[in-house]
Amino acid sequence: MKTFEKRFKSIQNEIIAAYTKLESSKRASIISDSWRRPEGGGGRTFVIQEGSFFDNCAVNFSSIFGSKLPKSAIGNSIVKSTRYGYQAMGVSVICHPKNPHIPTSHMNVRLFCILDKKNKIKDWWIGGGYDLTPYFVNEEDISHWHKSAKINLDGFNKSYYGKFSKNCNEYFYIPHRDERRGVGGVFFDNKKHKSIDSSIHMLESIAKTYLNSYQDIINNRKNLSFTKDEKEFQELRRGRYVEFNLVNDRGTAFGLQSNGRTPSILSSLPLRASWKYRKSKEMQAKEKKLVKALGKDWNV
Amino acid sequence: MKTFEKRFKSIQNEIIAAYTKLESSKRASIISDSWRRPEGGGGRTFVIQEGSFFDNCAVNFSSIFGSKLPKSAIGNSIVKSTRYGYQAMGVSVICHPKNPHIPTSHMNVRLFCILDKKNKIKDWWIGGGYDLTPYFVNEEDISHWHKSAKINLDGFNKSYYGKFSKNCNEYFYIPHRDERRGVGGVFFDNKKHKSIDSSIHMLESIAKTYLNSYQDIINNRKNLSFTKDEKEFQELRRGRYVEFNLVNDRGTAFGLQSNGRTPSILSSLPLRASWKYRKSKEMQAKEKKLVKALGKDWNV
Repeated sequence: MKTFEKRFKSIQNEIIAAYTKLESSKRASIISDSWRRPEGGGGRTFVIQEGSFFDNCAVNFSSIFGSKLPKSAIGNSIVKSTRYGYQAMGVSVICHPKNPHIPTSHMNVRLFCILDKKNKIKDWWIGGGYDLTPYFVNEEDISHWHKSAKINLDGFNKSYYGKFSKNCNEYFYIPHRDERRGVGGVFFDNKKHKSIDSSIHMLESIAKTYLNSYQDIINNRKNLSFTKDEKEFQELRRGRYVEFNLVNDRGTAFGLQSNGRTPSILSSLPLRASWKYRKSKEMQAKEKKLVKALGKDWNV
Repeated sequence: MKTFEKRFKSIQNEIIAAYTKLESSKRASIISDSWRRPEGGGGRTFVIQEGSFFDNCAVNFSSIFGSKLPKSAIGNSIVKSTRYGYQAMGVSVICHPKNPHIPTSHMNVRLFCILDKKNKIKDWWIGGGYDLTPYFVNEEDISHWHKSAKINLDGFNKSYYGKFSKNCNEYFYIPHRDERRGVGGVFFDNKKHKSIDSSIHMLESIAKTYLNSYQDIINNRKNLSFTKDEKEFQELRRGRYVEFNLVNDRGTAFGLQSNGRTPSILSSLPLRASWKYRKSKEMQAKEKKLVKALGKDWNV
């Protein structure tokens, strides 16, 4: 388990290094918190807050274990009982840049192991993925995002990208708004790719592809200036992000209900979000255009 | 039913008149939307948005009916099956004033009727209450809020205030933060006060007491000036309000899951909310003071 943890921590460190470079402002709060969980395990929460590049950004690692499987794990699993121990580890990333021309991005990679009485691995699976939430649509960025995901996953199995990108559209959907959260990406769960070692290797490769694609998009957009109105529109749409995370996201619900570390779980929320019963005509026009793009099939 | 609806609409109109008076700014958007529900019934959503007094304020009436009881109603009811028709009507009010020295307030009164095959009332109950969410604590305001609630309810039944104020503390609680949403008030459900007529009379009296107490608090605080920091603190604490409404509030969850009118349901959300992984020392001190007060037993 220590070797696996090390590999996840490396993923975290690589992303932290890349994002810290982007945030040159001395005003920014850069916070690294290591924490332990009373029931077993712990993690490290890394946050950049109120910078000149990021409104906020969280790159979190956690590895937790328990002697009784959480009920929510059973539906997914081959195992039908909660009487086993488990170990779950992963890295979660969320980036809310200040500039509304740069999309919000999210990435998660995780390994779940079921343990027998001698703490040996009885069963295991991996899950994760990444998705993109633009405020203003750039077809070029979205197409690059999807293409890189496909090229990378094709190297593992030609069937993966098709399935994972479809999952992503289905998962990141807000029923009460009948809107997708973003323009998709990839998402999967309960997956074995050959051995555990090969599976973690695939997660490493997914994390790297996410980071590279997102950095490309950042480089394409970071020099664009933005207006007060565009910032206001971003904050209104970040209201939708809050709605998805608090109402629809199973991971957030599970974390909050299972006595997880609340500040780490909710580090995914944006610095600021806004709601208006009625938006101005200009905002409505911006939103109409965006929502139309979110409904499109961007999979390549 | 039409007579009952008329009485709820009067409650709505009286509150709209009072709050419209407070909002003198010509910048404010004042919106009144009447809507129909395809499955039966409808309502009127009234919103004041981005004014000089209110960040936002919603005073909503709805009356809906259906031929099959929603499952969520059964647990509460004497009736054990969904095979009955129902009619549910009520008024919901939420006020987020701009000035952080004025608390946010919420009030709801409702009547639920179970109908037999001839659309006659087979069973019924009332529910509702009101609660107060300050950002800065004024003992005088809170004590007035609770005392007025007690004096009013004592006129109906001496046991009500004690039960209802305890319910309120239990209901408006955010488990993942281990914090109450506010300093309480009254909350009840599945209640009969003598006849339907007497019960609606009690709801009218509760709505009136809410309005009077809240107007008193507004008058005590509206002339206080506030700083940018105090406004920022209010927005951070409004993040908690969003968390309660989206994660914990059963009414919101039921509305969203049952294909309710989303913009009306979410008109309870503040104009702006904010989240920070780490708050400044000044904000932490303000929050510590507030959270201590929220944990106090304010019931009189």
